[in-house]
Amino acid sequence: MSLINMLSSPEWLVEENDFDVELQNTFETLFTVGNGYLGTRATLEESNKGEFAATYISGIFDNHDSTVIDLVNAPDWLPVSIWVDGIKLNIQSCRVLSHRRVLDMKTGALYRFTRFKDSLDRITSYESVRFASIQQSHLCAMRIAVTPENYDATLVVESSIDGGNYNLDRIPNYAETKKFHPETKWNKWAKSKHLRFVSNESSDKNCYLEMETIDTKHRVGYAATLRAQNCDVNKTQRRDYEKVTQIVEFKAKKEHTYIIDKLVSIFTSRDVASDIINDACMETLNKALHDGFDRCFNDHINEWNSRWNACDCQISGDKEAMHALRFNIYHLLISANPNDPKVNIGAKTLSGEGYKGHVFWDTEIFMLPFFIYTQPETAKSLLLYRYHTLEGARKNATLNGYSGAQYPWESADTGLETTPKWTADGVNRIWTGEEELHITADVAYGILTYLSATGDMNFILNYGAEMLFETARFWISRIELNTDKDRYELNNVIGPDEFHEHVNNNVYTNVMVRWNLQNSALLLETIKQHYSEEYAHLAKKLCLSDEEVTHWVNVAAKIYIPFDTESGLIEQFEDYFQCKEVPIVEWDKNDMPCYPAGYDHFNAGETTLLKQPDVVMLMYVLPDEYDDEIKRRNYEFYEKRTLHKSSLSPCMHAIMGIEVEDTHKAEQYFLRSALVDLVDNQGNTEWGIHAASTGGTWMTAVFGFGGFRVRQQKMSFKPWLPSTWNELTFKLRWHGDCLDVSITQSEIRLLLHSQKSHPEEINITGEKQVLQRNERQVFCLNSSMN
Amino acid sequence: MSLINMLSSPEWLVEENDFDVELQNTFETLFTVGNGYLGTRATLEESNKGEFAATYISGIFDNHDSTVIDLVNAPDWLPVSIWVDGIKLNIQSCRVLSHRRVLDMKTGALYRFTRFKDSLDRITSYESVRFASIQQSHLCAMRIAVTPENYDATLVVESSIDGGNYNLDRIPNYAETKKFHPETKWNKWAKSKHLRFVSNESSDKNCYLEMETIDTKHRVGYAATLRAQNCDVNKTQRRDYEKVTQIVEFKAKKEHTYIIDKLVSIFTSRDVASDIINDACMETLNKALHDGFDRCFNDHINEWNSRWNACDCQISGDKEAMHALRFNIYHLLISANPNDPKVNIGAKTLSGEGYKGHVFWDTEIFMLPFFIYTQPETAKSLLLYRYHTLEGARKNATLNGYSGAQYPWESADTGLETTPKWTADGVNRIWTGEEELHITADVAYGILTYLSATGDMNFILNYGAEMLFETARFWISRIELNTDKDRYELNNVIGPDEFHEHVNNNVYTNVMVRWNLQNSALLLETIKQHYSEEYAHLAKKLCLSDEEVTHWVNVAAKIYIPFDTESGLIEQFEDYFQCKEVPIVEWDKNDMPCYPAGYDHFNAGETTLLKQPDVVMLMYVLPDEYDDEIKRRNYEFYEKRTLHKSSLSPCMHAIMGIEVEDTHKAEQYFLRSALVDLVDNQGNTEWGIHAASTGGTWMTAVFGFGGFRVRQQKMSFKPWLPSTWNELTFKLRWHGDCLDVSITQSEIRLLLHSQKSHPEEINITGEKQVLQRNERQVFCLNSSMN
Repeated sequence: MSLINMLSSPEWLVEENDFDVELQNTFETLFTVGNGYLGTRATLEESNKGEFAATYISGIFDNHDSTVIDLVNAPDWLPVSIWVDGIKLNIQSCRVLSHRRVLDMKTGALYRFTRFKDSLDRITSYESVRFASIQQSHLCAMRIAVTPENYDATLVVESSIDGGNYNLDRIPNYAETKKFHPETKWNKWAKSKHLRFVSNESSDKNCYLEMETIDTKHRVGYAATLRAQNCDVNKTQRRDYEKVTQIVEFKAKKEHTYIIDKLVSIFTSRDVASDIINDACMETLNKALHDGFDRCFNDHINEWNSRWNACDCQISGDKEAMHALRFNIYHLLISANPNDPKVNIGAKTLSGEGYKGHVFWDTEIFMLPFFIYTQPETAKSLLLYRYHTLEGARKNATLNGYSGAQYPWESADTGLETTPKWTADGVNRIWTGEEELHITADVAYGILTYLSATGDMNFILNYGAEMLFETARFWISRIELNTDKDRYELNNVIGPDEFHEHVNNNVYTNVMVRWNLQNSALLLETIKQHYSEEYAHLAKKLCLSDEEVTHWVNVAAKIYIPFDTESGLIEQFEDYFQCKEVPIVEWDKNDMPCYPAGYDHFNAGETTLLKQPDVVMLMYVLPDEYDDEIKRRNYEFYEKRTLHKSSLSPCMHAIMGIEVEDTHKAEQYFLRSALVDLVDNQGNTEWGIHAASTGGTWMTAVFGFGGFRVRQQKMSFKPWLPSTWNELTFKLRWHGDCLDVSITQSEIRLLLHSQKSHPEEINITGEKQVLQRNERQVFCLNSSMN
Repeated sequence: MSLINMLSSPEWLVEENDFDVELQNTFETLFTVGNGYLGTRATLEESNKGEFAATYISGIFDNHDSTVIDLVNAPDWLPVSIWVDGIKLNIQSCRVLSHRRVLDMKTGALYRFTRFKDSLDRITSYESVRFASIQQSHLCAMRIAVTPENYDATLVVESSIDGGNYNLDRIPNYAETKKFHPETKWNKWAKSKHLRFVSNESSDKNCYLEMETIDTKHRVGYAATLRAQNCDVNKTQRRDYEKVTQIVEFKAKKEHTYIIDKLVSIFTSRDVASDIINDACMETLNKALHDGFDRCFNDHINEWNSRWNACDCQISGDKEAMHALRFNIYHLLISANPNDPKVNIGAKTLSGEGYKGHVFWDTEIFMLPFFIYTQPETAKSLLLYRYHTLEGARKNATLNGYSGAQYPWESADTGLETTPKWTADGVNRIWTGEEELHITADVAYGILTYLSATGDMNFILNYGAEMLFETARFWISRIELNTDKDRYELNNVIGPDEFHEHVNNNVYTNVMVRWNLQNSALLLETIKQHYSEEYAHLAKKLCLSDEEVTHWVNVAAKIYIPFDTESGLIEQFEDYFQCKEVPIVEWDKNDMPCYPAGYDHFNAGETTLLKQPDVVMLMYVLPDEYDDEIKRRNYEFYEKRTLHKSSLSPCMHAIMGIEVEDTHKAEQYFLRSALVDLVDNQGNTEWGIHAASTGGTWMTAVFGFGGFRVRQQKMSFKPWLPSTWNELTFKLRWHGDCLDVSITQSEIRLLLHSQKSHPEEINITGEKQVLQRNERQVFCLNSSMN
């Protein structure tokens, strides 16, 4: 009766085949289970020293006791300990004969297979499977199968809900001079407490814990029950302040497998009124109890099947790439909540507390495209978060002396700027909160990208337009007229390349601002023409005048864009070309560039070295802005100066590498992006999944290899496949329809499922084509592909 | 059957009568139980958030994972939790109807009386008493008396030995900008792990945990047993990595009191060979089990009685002063181990981890006198620590480029310098490790003070002389000849007043060095004359020549001592009189001076303000060095400039205040010293008892009010009693004899218990007197006393 029979086929599995204490925190991130409502790191049920146990519930932020507002590390629903005649099955003090964990991406479940041998030579097989239901997001469940292999004994199973989790705060810088024991490294961090005890309950049937965030006053309730399936048990409970425990005790016989199910329901005062959290938890728990573990798991699996069905992207001929790509999509799928328009995806998803759960431009530029083209409802939800934080963005602008809406570089629950002012060691000033302005244009870009793929004018009229216009207003108030040169400038900013702070006229920022202003004006014109009633409403609400909009266009026309006409090089910012040239001469074991001797994050700004692409980014984001030759020259120039010290970097170089036909490097960059967490090539996966890279990996598959882009409002394909790839297939949602795409080395096959009837004009490798609806069509690719 | 009947009479009790979470960490320090071998902070048995549980075993240091070597926070022997039908008796989640704790100083035991009311209105009376046996220092014990007042229920009692304790490391400075919730304040500190798991065991009878310090490889073993006295119980055990637990479960009846005893034995590899720690623990535990709690407690109480008998100091007429004085003596008695010549007393005793358990000059100057005059065997043990760390002191000298032995400003297990280089927040450099040199002379002073009181030439010949000569050698190598002025100087030092760093010719240091050199030479001469064999051995061992010793005397004669002959003011260091005068204008609620506006510890060095006495200190330490008028003038000058930002300060001002007849202030200073921890007037009692102040308080009673000093090798008395005091009595050990002293407003009564027969020459209020042995003698005090 081993759980092993439940596993999907191998291509869906990510495995850990040993217990390496040094890798535990990394696997905790990789094997996170979640459903967009919450994410739970893959700590072991019995909990061991050095683990970082965490469950994050999207939208539950608090800033009590912490230097910056945190996504709260909520109570832990995992704890289960098993005691064999009083000896705990513990991976640190028992002998571990074998230990294997498997993340089943197809079913969103984490399996574990451990064999313990204790000091009395008793061998116990311990198996478990856990999931956070994606069908009923308030439900988490775990099944444990325990088998005494060579003994009879009394087994005690203790299952808890533990409200004692902390968030990590800063680390003293002196502490970094030592390498810490993996059991104790978190002890060097200051910890922030965000939850205070409200109440606990227990009965024969279940237990309940309610906590409250100390400053933001969110209530969080967990109800849990423990059920042993096939044995007579003695049941007791324990209530101890912020920890509630259920205990079952039974006489276990040799070679018999005992099944214990733990079901947990979770609600917060963001979901229901505070006074009915308990009721909501109990109702969900009772339904789950009634249905039983198997049915709950089946419902969950069915929903996973339909999610995969909507977005799976398959590579035939390259198992590693396919596997890694799926891993990235898995994490995208558990990071967003289509049903909560007031939350978004943090830079580390719900899998770790790097960046404290804050939301960055990563969403609009890196993750949003995946959702736009595979689950537009979720994309809409993500954009609505920006609408619901518009007040905060307006306040940011006001506080800084500007008009309109200034989206925060780091966003939490309100849209107010939440970027910390100092690095975690307190030594270096972080300026991105003040200077990395492009986020505001990126939000606008996300909105119009969504519009172009969905045609969802309702969203624009109700929410999007207001954001667009308010961002345009912010830019107008922030931009400065240089009267000497008769041009508009944005000074003292940081572009995507964060090595260079306090720069003037960052080209990415300036071009995006121009685009933001122009497209806001265009959209307003469209609305004025076609939706006069809504226009009137908006104009009144926002006090918009024609003169103001004309001014947007006039300013946009005069924004300074540094460009060297002779070389065709776009200058990343004013005087960037005067920076010191320091060549990259060393690469690490992952073939990632090393800092040249004497340089680090905080002084690389003196050089032309880039943390991550800036001009290259721009050429991707606005593909019609520059011609192919300019793209090639600039890619070549900047690529060799880029250190990729951001996980946002490789995917952009992969996509642009394909575009400028540097395909060899593009393949490398694709793998760097796809494997960023699986091989931990940024060295910080323990802090959470690199969300932008998950999206960037999907984008590389679809926009890079698949060559899909929207150009002049039309779908366009210019694929290129690595020689080992036989076929790349994926799906795209387009204006309510669904397009099946299959690409081989020689052709592209398209099938547009649609309720409409008129043919769709598309572009394939530069040529206009007509795509009939509901009809599989094959287009030959020109021979230049390889 | 309440434990309350066991309490001593009220004058021996220190009480806490309420549960105030803000004061918990302070009471944990105040109510520490210990026996010199170990100290255990007074956390509650059930353990609550925000407590700082700690047991420190003298001599168990480790520096793994910490910025400076720590006195290791050893496994916790206290944990006992009680569950009433599954609900934990927890001071944070149950209603606490009453909570009282009483430290019984007479018997070295901590009592607790708590009444809990749980959410089902069940009321439980919980009482406990705990002690660390002073008769068998490897034994700790606890008795719990639990009474269900209004219900029948199943009670579960869980008792653990928990190896999971941490030491606190630095705190990030930014964290101090917020006041932290008492439940979570320790979370802001980095924590250092020093113990790793070795083994655990459990049986029906007892459980055992062994841990090892990670870097220093000391093994620490705890055996424990839990015994319910008067009920049928179901007994189980739990072993979980570094935590071993025994559980008893029984049906409890209303109004019946259940007695549960916990006995714990502790040994380390400093006590016995590593491979027999377990055996040693079991043997001690089994003996204790055989004897039973009551007998163990009686043995402990009897030993306490004899300790108090040796050193109690009674004030009749002032209960508060008497009570506070006893409290200080209590903490002296639990801080030193007469049986371990390789350990000493940390600046915070074994009651907290301020200063990381390190040993300072506090021992020789502040605590040693108490032991010299009441328990000379313990004093000898404390001095032997300096002998056993002589190699470290030699190495310090070598490392700094000097000869001889340089005692470390902060000393741990080896005598190597262990002063941290930075303040806990990493912001300010600490220079005492490099510059506060006087410690080396203070050690020499301690040795000769011991000799003068005991006449123990054996100690000198075997240990003391070597230390004396090596310290003299250090000074000779450190001192500089100023050829221009034909004088010897000690430049770039810190005196006792630590506000002033990098000063030249600090007068305390220079005079003590002169004294050190002169007395080393004198001692050598004595040995040469009277112990020729030992002299030959020493001279050979240390390569000592007559020329070298002559040089000591010559250098001593030319050491520069800043002194203004006109004013009679001793200048604290060269150019001290040029510092800025900033008057003290504000006092806090404890009547302690506040920093003048704009000043703090790190810039007060620009001014003439003192952290603690320096010149005043000197006049106390070497009473024959200056005449009464000079003492008066200097006391007056410096007293008004002293901020008392050290707990070492008030007692010195009390003693010197009496000496110069500033008795009003002396009384105030005595109380400040005596109450430093009881009213927490330094604001940091949570970090441990101020050891120097405990000794300084006793010194104020005996040397100040009692007027006892050794002048010209003779006992001398010049008492002064506050008007409310009727009588002051104390005991002194003097050259193997014991002197009973009783002082009233008008007379001093002496009784010298002795085996010898010749009378003793003493000095009373400046006049020579002859004291007959074994005969009570009364001397009238002259009327100038009040």
